[in-house]
Amino acid sequence: MAGSTYGTLFTMTTWGESHGPAIGVVVDGCPAGIPLSEGDIQRFLDRRKPGQSKYTTARSESDQVEILSGVFEGRTTGTPISLMVRNQDQRSRDYGKIKDCYRPGHADYTFDSKYGFRDYRGGGRTSGRETIGRVAAGAIASKMLDQLGIHLRAYTKAIGSIVVPESAYDYDCIVHNSLYMPSDDYAQRASAYLEQCIKEQDSSGGIVECRINGMPAGIGDPVFQKLDACLARALMSIGAVKGIEIGDGFEAAASKGSINNDAFLNCQGNICKKTNHSGGTLGGLSDGSPIILRAAIKPTPSISKPQQTVTREGEETTITITGRHDPVIVPRAVVVVESMAAITIADLLMTGMSSNMENLLKIYQK
Amino acid sequence: MAGSTYGTLFTMTTWGESHGPAIGVVVDGCPAGIPLSEGDIQRFLDRRKPGQSKYTTARSESDQVEILSGVFEGRTTGTPISLMVRNQDQRSRDYGKIKDCYRPGHADYTFDSKYGFRDYRGGGRTSGRETIGRVAAGAIASKMLDQLGIHLRAYTKAIGSIVVPESAYDYDCIVHNSLYMPSDDYAQRASAYLEQCIKEQDSSGGIVECRINGMPAGIGDPVFQKLDACLARALMSIGAVKGIEIGDGFEAAASKGSINNDAFLNCQGNICKKTNHSGGTLGGLSDGSPIILRAAIKPTPSISKPQQTVTREGEETTITITGRHDPVIVPRAVVVVESMAAITIADLLMTGMSSNMENLLKIYQK
Amino acid sequence: MAGSTYGTLFTMTTWGESHGPAIGVVVDGCPAGIPLSEGDIQRFLDRRKPGQSKYTTARSESDQVEILSGVFEGRTTGTPISLMVRNQDQRSRDYGKIKDCYRPGHADYTFDSKYGFRDYRGGGRTSGRETIGRVAAGAIASKMLDQLGIHLRAYTKAIGSIVVPESAYDYDCIVHNSLYMPSDDYAQRASAYLEQCIKEQDSSGGIVECRINGMPAGIGDPVFQKLDACLARALMSIGAVKGIEIGDGFEAAASKGSINNDAFLNCQGNICKKTNHSGGTLGGLSDGSPIILRAAIKPTPSISKPQQTVTREGEETTITITGRHDPVIVPRAVVVVESMAAITIADLLMTGMSSNMENLLKIYQK
Amino acid sequence: MAGSTYGTLFTMTTWGESHGPAIGVVVDGCPAGIPLSEGDIQRFLDRRKPGQSKYTTARSESDQVEILSGVFEGRTTGTPISLMVRNQDQRSRDYGKIKDCYRPGHADYTFDSKYGFRDYRGGGRTSGRETIGRVAAGAIASKMLDQLGIHLRAYTKAIGSIVVPESAYDYDCIVHNSLYMPSDDYAQRASAYLEQCIKEQDSSGGIVECRINGMPAGIGDPVFQKLDACLARALMSIGAVKGIEIGDGFEAAASKGSINNDAFLNCQGNICKKTNHSGGTLGGLSDGSPIILRAAIKPTPSISKPQQTVTREGEETTITITGRHDPVIVPRAVVVVESMAAITIADLLMTGMSSNMENLLKIYQK
Repeated sequence: MAGSTYGTLFTMTTWGESHGPAIGVVVDGCPAGIPLSEGDIQRFLDRRKPGQSKYTTARSESDQVEILSGVFEGRTTGTPISLMVRNQDQRSRDYGKIKDCYRPGHADYTFDSKYGFRDYRGGGRTSGRETIGRVAAGAIASKMLDQLGIHLRAYTKAIGSIVVPESAYDYDCIVHNSLYMPSDDYAQRASAYLEQCIKEQDSSGGIVECRINGMPAGIGDPVFQKLDACLARALMSIGAVKGIEIGDGFEAAASKGSINNDAFLNCQGNICKKTNHSGGTLGGLSDGSPIILRAAIKPTPSISKPQQTVTREGEETTITITGRHDPVIVPRAVVVVESMAAITIADLLMTGMSSNMENLLKIYQK
Repeated sequence: MAGSTYGTLFTMTTWGESHGPAIGVVVDGCPAGIPLSEGDIQRFLDRRKPGQSKYTTARSESDQVEILSGVFEGRTTGTPISLMVRNQDQRSRDYGKIKDCYRPGHADYTFDSKYGFRDYRGGGRTSGRETIGRVAAGAIASKMLDQLGIHLRAYTKAIGSIVVPESAYDYDCIVHNSLYMPSDDYAQRASAYLEQCIKEQDSSGGIVECRINGMPAGIGDPVFQKLDACLARALMSIGAVKGIEIGDGFEAAASKGSINNDAFLNCQGNICKKTNHSGGTLGGLSDGSPIILRAAIKPTPSISKPQQTVTREGEETTITITGRHDPVIVPRAVVVVESMAAITIADLLMTGMSSNMENLLKIYQK
Repeated sequence: MAGSTYGTLFTMTTWGESHGPAIGVVVDGCPAGIPLSEGDIQRFLDRRKPGQSKYTTARSESDQVEILSGVFEGRTTGTPISLMVRNQDQRSRDYGKIKDCYRPGHADYTFDSKYGFRDYRGGGRTSGRETIGRVAAGAIASKMLDQLGIHLRAYTKAIGSIVVPESAYDYDCIVHNSLYMPSDDYAQRASAYLEQCIKEQDSSGGIVECRINGMPAGIGDPVFQKLDACLARALMSIGAVKGIEIGDGFEAAASKGSINNDAFLNCQGNICKKTNHSGGTLGGLSDGSPIILRAAIKPTPSISKPQQTVTREGEETTITITGRHDPVIVPRAVVVVESMAAITIADLLMTGMSSNMENLLKIYQK
Repeated sequence: MAGSTYGTLFTMTTWGESHGPAIGVVVDGCPAGIPLSEGDIQRFLDRRKPGQSKYTTARSESDQVEILSGVFEGRTTGTPISLMVRNQDQRSRDYGKIKDCYRPGHADYTFDSKYGFRDYRGGGRTSGRETIGRVAAGAIASKMLDQLGIHLRAYTKAIGSIVVPESAYDYDCIVHNSLYMPSDDYAQRASAYLEQCIKEQDSSGGIVECRINGMPAGIGDPVFQKLDACLARALMSIGAVKGIEIGDGFEAAASKGSINNDAFLNCQGNICKKTNHSGGTLGGLSDGSPIILRAAIKPTPSISKPQQTVTREGEETTITITGRHDPVIVPRAVVVVESMAAITIADLLMTGMSSNMENLLKIYQK
């Protein structure tokens, strides 16, 4: 499939460059009958808006979404939902140096290698603005999951080396601090660290974690469409993500079977698990426990410190990137991670409906 | 797509259960004209065979591959290549307890949740034997990549907490020790650790690393088919993998932009990079540096220590798993990781051929 | 794949309802470096515009296309090309009867069966306006095919029982008569027939034929992606198409092998065929001769004669459809058939690039 | 997707050449819990066996199917079902002329164009034996459809110009004559015609028709995955098919709206149609009436009359094809058409389960 479409039955196709007239997404395959308004989508988009704090860019992007199709009398019709956001802050500027030099940590060189040339204005298709389409689609997927009792919550687990330990989690804090951390205390320490990064004309990476509650057991597929494999691809497809974990992740590699195996219990008549080292999957299928995911995000590559690089012709030179850039993109990535996870799970719920004949009889038997 | 098919143009469809008559794979879309023999495939399969050392199972599996189609006069014809391995060691035995109880760390419970029932003999479709098809397909992909100068090498980076530091790497060692570690010294330490695990009726996890040399720049796609996203899914689709990293991975989250960005240089007329924190990708496309991947593998769930669990009916009980099981599957997973990476890259090279009009003219212009 | 996306590497995703704010398409996977302007697309859209003659609706639809992404400095960039046309003639009207009754020959009843309800305004997603996206995408595919020397030409082969015999073809006529027939004489007869249909408050069907010149041999795939199978699906996916033929089509069923087989010849050093009963394909692959396709199109279902039907509740009633409707849609379908064929061939050219190792070496060998 | 895999959720991947060791198929995505035995599949395969009458080849092919995976204790498990038939009658022979010359009406030339060379033994991948995999998969799809009350019946509508009119249909005859015609009288006339073809060293084409009863309304998709579009591709992917019709097909092109539109009625409380010109679909979705399909099949290209052709080097020559060939393949294609239709409908039933939120709640709400 061409690279800007994602999903099998619940699909999204994103389009748009940072400095073109608009950015958008077509969500196809969304079940009919889900209540949906522009407000539902706007609430998600507002979570990724820059200008939320001093650690995100000062650009003013209003990012007003417009529903162009697929919704009738307040409900999804089952036909493609086309969503568009006009790009408003497209100041004309001099792209001279960026046009001819390859920015370290960016995709300028690799785009030229693949396509022969590139839209050099502000990152073009690799701009973080591409995630607007993902988040808009994520809002729709979340509406659908809500009706099934499935709820996702992503947050900032770490900024640089400031890592919130699970013991310090207070989920209520997430919406109270501009870094979306589940601890105000750690959020303050992270802020201090980011102040220093700004001073040093440098940037920081971090970790986003996502918990999914209410998942029924048996979602996913046992071989190539494993729930965790699909989620790994979903999250790794977000620019800047360099690592993925589910459950104990890399810690499981150093563990032993007797510790890492989660014992099964009977919890008031239902099968449940004593621990959740697995992060909610067994054999590629959900096991009924919360899904726990983590994505490692690299430091923002656009820094104003001078950097060594080459021109398109291969001549060595130095580049200094000016303009408004986030010293850390982690807080803005939180809703993108949540959206990609929501879309992936919506799709797997839909493709999994035909896993046994009993389900087919439920739908089609007269 | 149904869950046992992988890939867009270079595809494989695996089939078979551990205790059925055979296991196999259909490789479709392989370019015509690649020299291929059963020996080429057997060499790969032999690398995942059990019985290679005392840390893998004592079962004798000869795993002789048969080419059933798609090869004519020693070359691939462009039509589907069907490969089959007969299951030979299917001792009849008593599955009583496994049949009715859910083994911790296994997919018994999740399979019942999805399908309503399961083939309870030895893991059925979730058995490690499913990877035979992947490795056979990987052998074919590797033959193709060889012709393009692309070479993959996977090895054991860690067993439990015994991690080989990059400074100690000696790639020549990989084939000399039964753990496929790039250091004989660390391999000895890991062996000692595994001895202890066996004594304790326990098991160990570990980390597999894979390096891909010779990749041209520009392979992959900038949005959902990012090279790293596809590789992450590929590796996470291997049973027991709980985490994925590319390049610096989770360390990048704690780093700064000025350190993590790789400077571009001119290396004797070609554009290259000073460092390779990125692990060979930028914006989802290969950047011409080696691709560096890591997969965290959980401890083998089958341990002979008694474990707490429930029956299908939800009654709490204790299970003791008997039989021949690897105390660590990491060494056997090495060739599986390499195979999945090879197949993924073969597919992306093929889908990427049409990225610009110049390429189309090269192929179709008379 | 969700139903509004078409293609494997060269893909389009259409969206929009007749009475929503806009209609559009996202073309993804188009090779980089193809010159493209809004004018190129507008020329195609103008061919399907209503109001071209008295036999098409009197609605004035300006259908001005806007390129929202994927084109930079006049060339395609390889990233998604988003195209939008605002719906301008959305008179508010009374949908009362259409809302509650099922129009014969329309999809009202089947939509309610699938989705539970429907957007009842003017056909919603099943409106002919959905083809705007296809035609816009077809314009892009045609630009690509032009560069490779592949040229498509569709025209009206028949209106009702007025069929232009091949012996009477004059391709120059196609653009001169409003029915796009390759014969002015037959176009006059067809016009007279349509006048009568209008008088009788009735409508007519017809046949569109498409010829594709310049196809290299070997395009397509031998099993499920046969060139003719892909083209059949492409054309049958156009609303109102009820039959498909390639080459001699149904006449071949009544023929004999000695007549139907096309002899091979040597034409000035190239292999060619003496006849073209096959319509340009053998074994699902192009054979170097022109591709000849035909699509049978049913009479427009919207007629003003009273018709017997039922309400949503199943009550029998009579419906009279008012409003502006084409007595024949065949002339407007001509460019849709041509577009669907162009997109299908563009996609097969791209997916076919990796059919042999020699091609891979041409692209990737340094 | 690579060309030997078909379907989205219910998929089949066929493999094998006529003169290789075996031929087979992997069916993936089949719902768990369907009773299935080798006998179920064998019954379908026996319907396509040669040697059924003097109008099909005299080769003895026992074609015994073996189930290699995916069935446990007599029921499908939801995992891939691998089916294999060994090729038994592979007489070694001299392929000299066929190896170097292009047989008219065959894919020899087009295969060389695509792949650079070909397996020239008996048609290789383009042999009719490739349909063994399709028929085996069709048997499984039919078992599933049976449980939902959906029944398919294909038969020979015409041999050469001997066409059975609908008024003469007697479905009970189908299994009584070796041509699978729904009229013994017409079957006798067709037999006489075929006798003459054999005498003239010539071959005949024909038409296969397929009726599908019991389809619920609303199956399919309104745009590119229209039920009729999917069926058209399915049937056109069978070698030798040159035309497809649904319902009135090409006759609809010559009809008028007032005749072609099917009035809706209330049939004992259910919505039904007075006529079925549409062939059971409206707007790409099933309308609850029987689906009526026709496929035009060209005359067998292998005839023993001398034919004009060229060698691989382009030298003009004459070829006489010897060996055992069917003077007509239509009767053997009957079960292939039925199988492709069954698989297509099984897949669309599965992908359509998520079309509205109500269905999701039926499956997932606790």
